[in-house]
Amino acid sequence: MAVETIIGVDVGGTKTAVVEVNPAGETLQRVSHPTDGAIPFATTFPALADAIATTIASARAGGRSPLAIGIAAPGPLHAGRGVVVDPPNLPGWHGAHVTAAVSSRFPALPVFLEHDAKAGALAEWRFGVGRTRPGLEHMIFLVYGTGMGAGIIVGGKLLRGASETAGELATFRVPIPDDARVRDVRGWEDAASGRGLVCLAHVMAPDRWPGRPEIHDIVSAALAGDPAARAVVTESGRWLGSGMAALVDVLNPQLIVVGSLGVVLGDLLLAPARESLGRAARPAAVAACEVVPAALGEHLSAVQAIMPALVGLGR
Amino acid sequence: MAVETIIGVDVGGTKTAVVEVNPAGETLQRVSHPTDGAIPFATTFPALADAIATTIASARAGGRSPLAIGIAAPGPLHAGRGVVVDPPNLPGWHGAHVTAAVSSRFPALPVFLEHDAKAGALAEWRFGVGRTRPGLEHMIFLVYGTGMGAGIIVGGKLLRGASETAGELATFRVPIPDDARVRDVRGWEDAASGRGLVCLAHVMAPDRWPGRPEIHDIVSAALAGDPAARAVVTESGRWLGSGMAALVDVLNPQLIVVGSLGVVLGDLLLAPARESLGRAARPAAVAACEVVPAALGEHLSAVQAIMPALVGLGR
Repeated sequence: MAVETIIGVDVGGTKTAVVEVNPAGETLQRVSHPTDGAIPFATTFPALADAIATTIASARAGGRSPLAIGIAAPGPLHAGRGVVVDPPNLPGWHGAHVTAAVSSRFPALPVFLEHDAKAGALAEWRFGVGRTRPGLEHMIFLVYGTGMGAGIIVGGKLLRGASETAGELATFRVPIPDDARVRDVRGWEDAASGRGLVCLAHVMAPDRWPGRPEIHDIVSAALAGDPAARAVVTESGRWLGSGMAALVDVLNPQLIVVGSLGVVLGDLLLAPARESLGRAARPAAVAACEVVPAALGEHLSAVQAIMPALVGLGR
Repeated sequence: MAVETIIGVDVGGTKTAVVEVNPAGETLQRVSHPTDGAIPFATTFPALADAIATTIASARAGGRSPLAIGIAAPGPLHAGRGVVVDPPNLPGWHGAHVTAAVSSRFPALPVFLEHDAKAGALAEWRFGVGRTRPGLEHMIFLVYGTGMGAGIIVGGKLLRGASETAGELATFRVPIPDDARVRDVRGWEDAASGRGLVCLAHVMAPDRWPGRPEIHDIVSAALAGDPAARAVVTESGRWLGSGMAALVDVLNPQLIVVGSLGVVLGDLLLAPARESLGRAARPAAVAACEVVPAALGEHLSAVQAIMPALVGLGR
């Protein structure tokens, strides 16, 4: 009998990956290409569909049997209706009927769309941080990629809210951290995300990067020890922690998991975040909560892409 | 057969009520006396126990049969262990083993303790706002009494969190509202509560009330049209709305219910809160959420007092 696998698409503000992952969470194939979020979905779709087709063909050539297609995309989106609503980093995808488009090209496979933050939360819960933490029931996954959003698990279940906007925290207003250097921040994503790093760099070190830097420039420079880049990452961490404090006071989670650039930057970002969290939230709630990078590390994107399908198939 | 009823104790920072309520939520008896939160629990307890005994005796004299005793008290507390931890407005009760004390005096009746905000949420969900809203699954109850706290219902279940501090929002740090007149507010309760009204009055109108006013003075003056008192209530409403915005962005509730003084002050408080909420939170999430005073009105305190027992008895 053919080995069963899932095809996943992880749509990000900077890059999109098409993957094949088995139900144990192991990545078998992965191709990735840059995303230009301004390009209309209809224009982008044929190339994306071709990448999916190629991945399916390779799977079958290898004697494996893809069961379904999962898609993780930035919110706001309507998972049930398969529609991406209006993610700020993907203007070209506003209103796109993603599930219908993929289904019409691959009619033999069921297609499942999910918010990337919610898919990331499920991926970490089942295959990442949750593996070593039996009984984990209350956790928050924070995207911290190009953009920001939260996937919230409460009592062992994904929190969607009344109209599926629970955890849509790009424009979340958080208090100014006590030791903030940049105080004029509007939404959480404007400081606590890859895009936030760019905004902060623009204010904190306008001379360090002539023109607007790319997210990657700041991250690489910070990892290489560049003081201006590190100061930007520290500042982003302070704001990250200030928003975490609100989540900790409201939800009292056992764990906050930071994905994407949180994995890459590690304690350069998470140490100031923990400090800021510790200063702002209730001590008893802070004591109950660990802050860690995603345990899936670089595999997170692939696993979160298949989670919608894995859950949709009831597996 | 005797009519079955529940005895309830609603412990507040300003007054404590002992009630008898039937399982339909109708109040049959109610006595109330002022609370001095600084007096040690051991000193307060005999008089409280006498009030409970009198209420039970009257119930039996009326041919009714009290089944259990419910207690709603300010948090932080451990419902399961029956212990009040350290509510700021009840310093004398810190660490008090309330359930054990009441049980030892009334050994024939099961005793159930619950956080007042959570008990209030359950009371409104079942007997108040929930009565006219079938399918209500995501709601937040805000105490807004002497102090502040939230009872959060998510997916039809009470949210407790990892260590029972979910919704402990007295020290919650919320962003400064755009149109705030008082900007130096530390925790949410310092502006959005009865105690917050006193703090704001002290800053905004130091000459209006010589010495520190009582909560009741400000509330009465606001209801009578006093401009200084109304300005204080409006300011409190702005801060109330700023914290609501965080709750709405994180949880995407269908409904926020404001208890206690929210019922008394009505739109004097809730109109500026709604404005502040509308400015700060995601429009889609705001559109999905109603903000209303507790539908139980003056009966809220009695019904919330019996909820721990009603739920504990599985009724």
